[in-house]
Amino acid sequence: MKNLKIGICGWGNVATGLYKTIKNNYDQITSNGNLNIDIAVIGARRDNPKCDPTNVKIERNIFDVINHDIDVVVELIGGVDTARELILTAIKNKKHVVTANKAVIFNHGNEIFKEAHNNGVRVLYESSVCAGTPAIKILSEELAANKIRKITGMLNGTSNFILSNMEEGANFASTLALAQKEGYAEPDPTFDIEGMDAAHKIGILSSLAFRTSLPPNDFYIEGISSIENIDFKYASEMGYTIKHLAIAKKNKESVELRAHPVLIEKIQYLANLKSVRNGIEIETDLLGILHVAGSGAGQESTASGIISDLVNLANSEKNTSNIDDHKIIPLADFLKLTFQYYIYIEADDIPGVMASITSTFADKKIGIETIVQKEELKEGIVPIVIITDPFLESENAELIKKIDELDSVKKVRSIRIEPF
Amino acid sequence: MKNLKIGICGWGNVATGLYKTIKNNYDQITSNGNLNIDIAVIGARRDNPKCDPTNVKIERNIFDVINHDIDVVVELIGGVDTARELILTAIKNKKHVVTANKAVIFNHGNEIFKEAHNNGVRVLYESSVCAGTPAIKILSEELAANKIRKITGMLNGTSNFILSNMEEGANFASTLALAQKEGYAEPDPTFDIEGMDAAHKIGILSSLAFRTSLPPNDFYIEGISSIENIDFKYASEMGYTIKHLAIAKKNKESVELRAHPVLIEKIQYLANLKSVRNGIEIETDLLGILHVAGSGAGQESTASGIISDLVNLANSEKNTSNIDDHKIIPLADFLKLTFQYYIYIEADDIPGVMASITSTFADKKIGIETIVQKEELKEGIVPIVIITDPFLESENAELIKKIDELDSVKKVRSIRIEPF
Repeated sequence: MKNLKIGICGWGNVATGLYKTIKNNYDQITSNGNLNIDIAVIGARRDNPKCDPTNVKIERNIFDVINHDIDVVVELIGGVDTARELILTAIKNKKHVVTANKAVIFNHGNEIFKEAHNNGVRVLYESSVCAGTPAIKILSEELAANKIRKITGMLNGTSNFILSNMEEGANFASTLALAQKEGYAEPDPTFDIEGMDAAHKIGILSSLAFRTSLPPNDFYIEGISSIENIDFKYASEMGYTIKHLAIAKKNKESVELRAHPVLIEKIQYLANLKSVRNGIEIETDLLGILHVAGSGAGQESTASGIISDLVNLANSEKNTSNIDDHKIIPLADFLKLTFQYYIYIEADDIPGVMASITSTFADKKIGIETIVQKEELKEGIVPIVIITDPFLESENAELIKKIDELDSVKKVRSIRIEPF
Repeated sequence: MKNLKIGICGWGNVATGLYKTIKNNYDQITSNGNLNIDIAVIGARRDNPKCDPTNVKIERNIFDVINHDIDVVVELIGGVDTARELILTAIKNKKHVVTANKAVIFNHGNEIFKEAHNNGVRVLYESSVCAGTPAIKILSEELAANKIRKITGMLNGTSNFILSNMEEGANFASTLALAQKEGYAEPDPTFDIEGMDAAHKIGILSSLAFRTSLPPNDFYIEGISSIENIDFKYASEMGYTIKHLAIAKKNKESVELRAHPVLIEKIQYLANLKSVRNGIEIETDLLGILHVAGSGAGQESTASGIISDLVNLANSEKNTSNIDDHKIIPLADFLKLTFQYYIYIEADDIPGVMASITSTFADKKIGIETIVQKEELKEGIVPIVIITDPFLESENAELIKKIDELDSVKKVRSIRIEPF
């Protein structure tokens, strides 16, 4: 049996969940994981009334945790700047690091991994993506022999919860309020619903699959706040639903990295994952399509991922990320990608409106796959739904602007269609 | 970088697929897996015209492979008795073993793991269940901290292919012929369609999750050959489809192990995996429900799993199965389990037939949830479809017999309904 002495930095929900899981599931961890985890010290600025860590030394300054006789610093303070400083200091003091903090890995991964490499220690971060649902280790170990072609992730539980409810007819605002009440969404949900959370996660997965850097260069990120209920109705009539996906795809000499809402066919696997579930579709040369789905948050799930990292640390020597292997691989230019689009238009119900819209497409030499004028929305206003042929992303903003400028058009928006 | 010298025993499709993958994906394996795999010797009774292993020593007697200066014997000869002997001999000669052979692990796992333990070597077998789709390592490593509650597997690609096609209206015999033509089914498909293949796989997963023995005691195994098209029609009308599932479930002091066709609700995840795909649903205390799905066969997928075992061998010290931990945990008595049943009856369309059938249920104090007499199948014969309340498996054979003995009943069969 291996033994690891750990120091836990941070004492919120995730940390107390980890503490309780190490106690409650001791038999599993020793028997399955061949590991005894000894919590030697906890760095907690203040006590947590929900959890009393009997017989564990408490440090009020989290940086003092590093000075204890421990093997691993478990960083659970969240945030970026202090977390980065804590992790780098731990590494310089020859401590391994386990973290569930996606923001710090996304923003400072390369710097952290390089420092770890130079100091002969390891940094593991399974719970930073989809909590305990295994994603990091599948990519870095189970699929080690595979050439990854594409990772398609539904990585944000809040967005999926909202879109799943909107699909059933609920509106955005009431569903967001429900998500906040149920604890699925933060009081300030911007990070989730504007796509940043999913973007962080796909950036981390891309670094494992394609050796893109952490942080990656800027890539296209769009959230779900512009989606309306009527889009689900019309998408559904054509066999689609709407999801927020984060995608990393290997092109010839670059990697396509993006996170935005898409129409996907209802028969697709990811279309059928509802509520707060997270799901990942990985396409490789050897396995074809692999699917993994599970809970993407929660203190127990996060504890599961952190403990799997500790088991890995104790029993294995393999680095998940070796900075020496990071070659600079450029990100694809988003504007040069090609998509089919769903375009929703509200227009005056007058003669000639279809002609003026279709002329706009013709002027830009953009093909239309289907165009349907729907029944009147209100007095004199009709929705028009278009599925385009594939065309360059760089043309889209201009096309939408031209349509919007038509006198008869009151509203227009577009959603990309994701091919599978 | 680690280095492993391996000897490959067997030179069929799986072995040549492994050989080619090690060559073709060298960059991935060294970079992601931190491993150089040196194929030192191949044990091949005869040459394989599809693959010429240039510069590799060939042994015509596979047992001579063990005498070479190698770290690992990769057993790909298939079958049980010779494979067992080869593996045990390799272990006694202090060679690690990697195998994709589910039959030998299912039938002799405990003996093999014990011998490996005594000789200080490891035996890994990721590809024995669902080929390269990670199942073994997820259970034994990623979920190390979890108390597993239930594993529900759709583990046989041939059965799933046939049932998926029957769901679309094709009949059993023509679909089986198609599966054989497409290479999804063996010339003799008995092992697949009678449930043995799925049973082997769930036995192996159960040994990891619940420490049941290998081989396990006898458990209930039933194949798909009694399912008829009309069952899909009536199941579908009630919101169900039909799948072949293999299940391992922790009860209070025993483990429920079984493999048979079931009705499952169409909204369930496993209901939506079609064609030859394999899928596993794992329920745990920390993660809730985890889903993994992928290809369950194929030489490239199998190579992916074997190489992940080699990467694990080179970089980790953790045993997947430590025989010292195997406590004897009994299997649940199948006859004492409780199910709801779908019961299909063909009966004479005469007055009193429903009364005589429902009386049979009443006599045995078995409740009926729904009973529907469908439209005439042919002149004077009506199908009657019943969903029962839950009752003991031990009552089912007798109930079906009593119904069958009714003068007006021409045909009766039952399918269990799997709760989720």
